[in-house]
Amino acid sequence: MNGLHLTADLSGVDPALPPMTDPAALAALCRDAIAASGLSGVAELFHRFAPEDAQSGITGVVLLAESHVAVHTWPELGGVTLDVYVCNYGSDNSARAEALLDALLKAFAPCDAAVQRLTRAAASTPRQ
Amino acid sequence: MNGLHLTADLSGVDPALPPMTDPAALAALCRDAIAASGLSGVAELFHRFAPEDAQSGITGVVLLAESHVAVHTWPELGGVTLDVYVCNYGSDNSARAEALLDALLKAFAPCDAAVQRLTRAAASTPRQ
Repeated sequence: MNGLHLTADLSGVDPALPPMTDPAALAALCRDAIAASGLSGVAELFHRFAPEDAQSGITGVVLLAESHVAVHTWPELGGVTLDVYVCNYGSDNSARAEALLDALLKAFAPCDAAVQRLTRAAASTPRQ
Repeated sequence: MNGLHLTADLSGVDPALPPMTDPAALAALCRDAIAASGLSGVAELFHRFAPEDAQSGITGVVLLAESHVAVHTWPELGGVTLDVYVCNYGSDNSARAEALLDALLKAFAPCDAAVQRLTRAAASTPRQ
């Protein structure tokens, strides 16, 4: 399956931003950014780590028809990691993936973001 | 946040393997492999695409205390994609991530697996 996997490792994010510690705010951010990008969410899961204070982050994922988006927040460090992975089956979703990552980066407004782009593809070995 | 992200794109997987089309079987496989590797699952979500026949795959994720595991199956193509992403905060989880990926690869027994290893790290820019 050919695909594009974008990762971004953010630093210097304001820990007071609601999506850093509020699962509902992070879910809404992801949902809106996915819809705006033209990708399709099919299910979502957001987990808040205990204790639920300003030091505890969220780990969450939205499963897409096109693969997945994952977000982990580290309010105590001002850090966030983002994954946007899309398969390119039927149509090329690369531009949608880039638009989604851009929207998430804009929302978190980090001082710095280390972005990597990974082309994914299986060998075309048919099963014997 | 320093971390290790392993991706594997599998081809030539037997579509009759239960984890290819049965969400409960895939969830059990992930749960067992995570436990054996020494990582810690905190929540999970598995979605079966419609129609629920031999041609429809599963997309799923287990959120870890250490980040996440994601699996997408494509029974119609004999394909599977795997992600194992661990942060190395507090301790180095790289060996556990490799063990988990090995266990999943062994279970899916592909004809071919394209494995990539991505070192993830944010710049250490403190927020001003």
